[in-house]
Amino acid sequence: MATLIAPSNHSPQEDAEALRKSFEGWGTDENTIIAILGHRTVHQRQQIRRAYEEIYQEDLVKRLESEIKGDFEKAVYRWILEPADRDAVLANVAIKSGKNYNVIVEIATINSPEELLAVRRAYLHRYKHSLEEDLAAHTTGPLRQLLVGLVTSFRYVGDEINPKLAQNEAEILHDAVKEKKSSYEEAIRVLTTRSKTQLRAAFNHYRGSQGVSISKKLVREEIDEFQKALYTAIGAINGPFRNLEKVVRKGFKKVGNDEEPLTRVVVTRAEKDLKILSGVFSKGKRGFFGHAIAKKILGGSQRFLSLFLGEEG
Amino acid sequence: MATLIAPSNHSPQEDAEALRKSFEGWGTDENTIIAILGHRTVHQRQQIRRAYEEIYQEDLVKRLESEIKGDFEKAVYRWILEPADRDAVLANVAIKSGKNYNVIVEIATINSPEELLAVRRAYLHRYKHSLEEDLAAHTTGPLRQLLVGLVTSFRYVGDEINPKLAQNEAEILHDAVKEKKSSYEEAIRVLTTRSKTQLRAAFNHYRGSQGVSISKKLVREEIDEFQKALYTAIGAINGPFRNLEKVVRKGFKKVGNDEEPLTRVVVTRAEKDLKILSGVFSKGKRGFFGHAIAKKILGGSQRFLSLFLGEEG
Repeated sequence: MATLIAPSNHSPQEDAEALRKSFEGWGTDENTIIAILGHRTVHQRQQIRRAYEEIYQEDLVKRLESEIKGDFEKAVYRWILEPADRDAVLANVAIKSGKNYNVIVEIATINSPEELLAVRRAYLHRYKHSLEEDLAAHTTGPLRQLLVGLVTSFRYVGDEINPKLAQNEAEILHDAVKEKKSSYEEAIRVLTTRSKTQLRAAFNHYRGSQGVSISKKLVREEIDEFQKALYTAIGAINGPFRNLEKVVRKGFKKVGNDEEPLTRVVVTRAEKDLKILSGVFSKGKRGFFGHAIAKKILGGSQRFLSLFLGEEG
Repeated sequence: MATLIAPSNHSPQEDAEALRKSFEGWGTDENTIIAILGHRTVHQRQQIRRAYEEIYQEDLVKRLESEIKGDFEKAVYRWILEPADRDAVLANVAIKSGKNYNVIVEIATINSPEELLAVRRAYLHRYKHSLEEDLAAHTTGPLRQLLVGLVTSFRYVGDEINPKLAQNEAEILHDAVKEKKSSYEEAIRVLTTRSKTQLRAAFNHYRGSQGVSISKKLVREEIDEFQKALYTAIGAINGPFRNLEKVVRKGFKKVGNDEEPLTRVVVTRAEKDLKILSGVFSKGKRGFFGHAIAKKILGGSQRFLSLFLGEEG
C-alpha cells in the first residue's frame, strides 16, 4: 500500500539531465527536483544516482546537498537514499544528538530482522564503525543495554510461541513498567531477544491479567531516557502502526517547526504503508493528513512530502 | 592451508551408495565411513547428503547418528555439518551444558563478523530461537552482557583505527584484568563493539605501558565464569591461533578421555588452518601432533581425526 506514484518507464539519463539543468543558473529549480524525485521508486532513484554519476562524474546526493538547504534538503536527502542507508543516517544523527533515541528504537523494532541487519551493514559501510559501537560509546547503564540489545538483535521470525514463557515474561514487563528497577535487566533481556510474536503473546497476557493494554500504561510525562526507550520499544513491537501514528500526532502538536519527525515518518513509510497510516490518522476524512502536513510543513518540503500522500493529499 | 586430502572428482551418488552399504548387515563398517567422509570437502559432503536423501528418502545425518556412537559419532556428526551449522550446534550444546562458555566466546571472536552472522542464521533455522535469546535466558549479570554482546556483534572489518581510543581503552581493559569490578561494564562495551584491529591496537598499548602482553596476565586458576569468558575473549581476539593452541594443549593435558575440545578444534580447523596449528604445536617435530592425538583419542574417532592432519599424521 504505497502512496508513491511513479511511472513504470522512465529514463534515468533524462532524469539526470533534467536535474542537472535544475541546478544551473541562478538559484535552483526546486519544482523540477520535486517533480522528478518525488515520483520515482527506490530502485529508480538509485538508477538516477548512477546515471548522474556516469554522465557528470559527480555525486548527485552531494550536489543536492549544496543546492538546497534546510528542511527541504533534509527531506530530499533522506528520500534519495536506499531505506537501509537512510536508517543508518537517521540512527547516526540520533546518536550524535544524544537524544531522540526513540528513532533508534523504531529502526530496531519496526524493521524486520533482515531489514535491521541491512541497516547495520549500511552503517558499517558509511561510518567505518558499527552501529552498536557508536551507540554504546554514547550511552551508559540500562539505556545502553536496552538500545544496544535492540539494534544487535536478530530475532526469530515465525509463529512458534511458548505460552508459559509469555505468562512469566508478562510479569517481568509489568514490574518494569511499574518502574521496579530490579526488574529492568530481565525486562531488557526479554525485549531484546524474544521474537515479536512471542512478545505480543506476553503483551496479551498483560492485558488479560491487568485489564489494560501495556501500551496504555506507558502514557506518562516525566520519564528519563531509559524509560522513554523502554516504552517506545514496547509500543513499537506491540503495534508498529499505532506507534507511527503517535509520532505523527506528536509531530503535529509540537510548537515551532521541527519538521524532523513528520518528514521521517512520511519519507520512510511512503513506499510501504503511508496510505494506511494516513487513512487511520484521518479517520476517513479525505485529505485530512495532507492538510495537516500542509499546515505544519512549509515551502519545498511541503510540496515534496505532499506528493507521497497520493490521492489522500 | 587445509590438511584435508580430497579427490577433485567424486560421485556423490557412489559415495551415498557406499555409505548405505556400510550401514547394512551386522554392525557398521566404520572404515568405509572414515574413508569416504574423511576425504571430502564441505561442499562434497553436502552433495553426498543431498544424494543420499534423494536415493534413500532418509536423512544421512540421522542415520549416521543411529549407526555410530560416542565420540566417533560426535566427530562425524560435527564434521558432516556445514561450518556455520556446526558452530550453531556447538553453541547450543554449550548453552545447554551451562558451562564451556569459552566455546561460545571462540565462535563469536575467531569467526569473522560475516561468519558469525551465518552461525546466528543457522542457529535460528535449527532451533527456532535466536542464539542470543537462548544464551541470555541461561545467564545473568556481567557474564550475560559479555556473552550476548560478543555473539550479537557485527564489527567493523578494516584497518582504520583510532590510536587515542586504543590508549584510553587499554586502561579500561587493564582495570578489568585487575578485577576492578567497576570497570567491567566499560570493558564489556569495548570488547563487544570495537573492531578486532582497534582492539589489537589497545592490546599493544597495554603491552607498551605494562611491559607484558595482556594475554600473559590472564593465566590464573581460580576464576569465575565471567572472568573465564573475559579472558578467553581477550586471548582469542589478541591471537586466535595461540588461543586454539591453548585449547589443544589443555585437551592433551586433561585427565580422562573428554575428547570434545580436541575433536572440536581438529574438525573446525581441518579445512582452514589445522596444518599451521599442528606445525606450531609440534614445533617442527614431524608427526608430533598426530601422535599426541593418537595417544589421547581412541577407536574410530582417532582414525577419523588423524586423517585431517594430512602429512603430519
